[in-house]
Amino acid sequence: MKYDTMRWRKDALELLDQRLLPRETRYVKCFTEREVSKAIKNMTVRGAPAIGIAGAYGAYLGIRGIRTKNNIEFDRKLDNVIKYLAGARPTARNLFWALERIKRVAEKNKGKTVDKIKSIMLDEAHAILREDINICREIGRHGAALIKKNSNVLTHCNAGALATGGYGTALGVIFSAKKKIKMVYADETRPVLQGARLTVWELIKNNVPATLICDNMAASLMAKDKIDAIIVGADRIAANGDTANKIGTYSLAVNAKYHKVPFYVAAPFSTFDLAIKNGREIPIEERSPEEVKSVGGQMLTVASVNVVNPAFDVTPAKLITAIITERGVIRRPNTASVRRILSM
Amino acid sequence: MKYDTMRWRKDALELLDQRLLPRETRYVKCFTEREVSKAIKNMTVRGAPAIGIAGAYGAYLGIRGIRTKNNIEFDRKLDNVIKYLAGARPTARNLFWALERIKRVAEKNKGKTVDKIKSIMLDEAHAILREDINICREIGRHGAALIKKNSNVLTHCNAGALATGGYGTALGVIFSAKKKIKMVYADETRPVLQGARLTVWELIKNNVPATLICDNMAASLMAKDKIDAIIVGADRIAANGDTANKIGTYSLAVNAKYHKVPFYVAAPFSTFDLAIKNGREIPIEERSPEEVKSVGGQMLTVASVNVVNPAFDVTPAKLITAIITERGVIRRPNTASVRRILSM
Repeated sequence: MKYDTMRWRKDALELLDQRLLPRETRYVKCFTEREVSKAIKNMTVRGAPAIGIAGAYGAYLGIRGIRTKNNIEFDRKLDNVIKYLAGARPTARNLFWALERIKRVAEKNKGKTVDKIKSIMLDEAHAILREDINICREIGRHGAALIKKNSNVLTHCNAGALATGGYGTALGVIFSAKKKIKMVYADETRPVLQGARLTVWELIKNNVPATLICDNMAASLMAKDKIDAIIVGADRIAANGDTANKIGTYSLAVNAKYHKVPFYVAAPFSTFDLAIKNGREIPIEERSPEEVKSVGGQMLTVASVNVVNPAFDVTPAKLITAIITERGVIRRPNTASVRRILSM
Repeated sequence: MKYDTMRWRKDALELLDQRLLPRETRYVKCFTEREVSKAIKNMTVRGAPAIGIAGAYGAYLGIRGIRTKNNIEFDRKLDNVIKYLAGARPTARNLFWALERIKRVAEKNKGKTVDKIKSIMLDEAHAILREDINICREIGRHGAALIKKNSNVLTHCNAGALATGGYGTALGVIFSAKKKIKMVYADETRPVLQGARLTVWELIKNNVPATLICDNMAASLMAKDKIDAIIVGADRIAANGDTANKIGTYSLAVNAKYHKVPFYVAAPFSTFDLAIKNGREIPIEERSPEEVKSVGGQMLTVASVNVVNPAFDVTPAKLITAIITERGVIRRPNTASVRRILSM
């Protein structure tokens, strides 16, 4: 990629500020766990895998300044930092997954000095970032096999390099299948416009033919046989394959079923939450009404109007043709087929 | 209504400038057919019945300055004015219907002086406006009978007083059924945001409980059983009931079918085009890419990106529970049931 979603420089986590794209390419430095949490909340960094990685660095930033040499006190403080970071956004599984992994590595090295544990935690955050890129390349490789020659592919929101460590899940598939793709239709993805701002920018940067549409145009393209496949990312996948993803995904999936268009979800293992049986149990974040009522500070409606603004919706597994993971493709996902591939 | 969509004042057609709503309530004066055509093209006035009425006044404005007393020359000029106005927007049937009606009244009065014909044409435009309000009240009355107590109703785009002579088609039903309605969910309706800007404004002005959502949220509300009925307007209805309406209507109709939510179209007879057998023959206007790429002059994406921007889509009759007209309700619309009610 010609851009980093995030990078570690000297003593800080640098995040490409996704609120400013595509207008401006600027990195925000985070020196503390508070700065990381804020960046996740206000969507400086977004995308389930990316906020997982940022969370891992945040955990390190939260404990690196701790002066104690007492391991018990250190553990208590680490617990607080992790709980604090986990509160940044409720839906994406990857944040909790990455924080658990950081916590586990600290626990495993209990006998070592606090300074050593700190350095091991930073190494683990680096490893999570590095591994994510490889995982996405594997997702891309498995997914590309599903794309037919001369395909028009539609995607929603942004599941690109910007949503991950640097290659993308849904866009990873598109990048890997680039030669077979005639056109990528990008839903603009109201209210935060990740499609218009981020996906279009990534596709153009990577020389993939891109057409921007409003979310409500996708169905009529399907009716005209202009869409051969839909690929989206995921924020959390339940044990039965039900998938939470950006609001609007479900509407696409219903339309895909009606028009017999294959509907693919691309996501790493870290997005699966086997503790959750089905989609009904996935908590859905409700965000500020201002996101719907205004664009870039410009009020679009009567300021006093009531708004609902769920950031995600849940697509039941029965509407998903396949889930593409780093270990292979789960066709017709259900509790048994998900368990089979996850335990491989 | 506490506002006029349009009104005749002395020597000009005054149009409520719908581009400025809800920020500002300002009327634009049209003294010529060119000004009316421009107002239709740039959506100062929009909504199929409203542009029909504006077109009728436009035809009068286009000939009132003609100095000839020669009826043949007058007819030739009137033909040109009507052809010119018909080119303003291609999809809505009502514009052509109103222009044909104005032309017919001129033809019927051929024997009279040019001055007399001019004054008859202005009276006809007034009649079209007056009748439209009554027609919408009848649509409202028939439609209200379909709404159950304590209903949550969803609507798309704006089919209110602003889209008509002054009462509304889809919103006419909602206004008439007001006591039975718990909440109206208004799709914001990208790209031009008629839902956020106009429908929300009208609902609040008329004390109807309103909640604004992004277009892509409607399906997930249906999945949670939060929508009891969907009502939209129409721009053109083919002989078999296939309905062209604002882009995004079709996606809602597919989702309504999937979730078993009744899907109603509310439209006057003047929206039907019996010369067109089915929806495939309805011309769909493609509007400027700028509408998708920017909001209020603010660029949302990479400026060079390709865009498609169809202003309308076609919902096949089989997805429509009923079409609500001023003469009654066409349940399960098809060529026979449409013909039956239109010939009543």
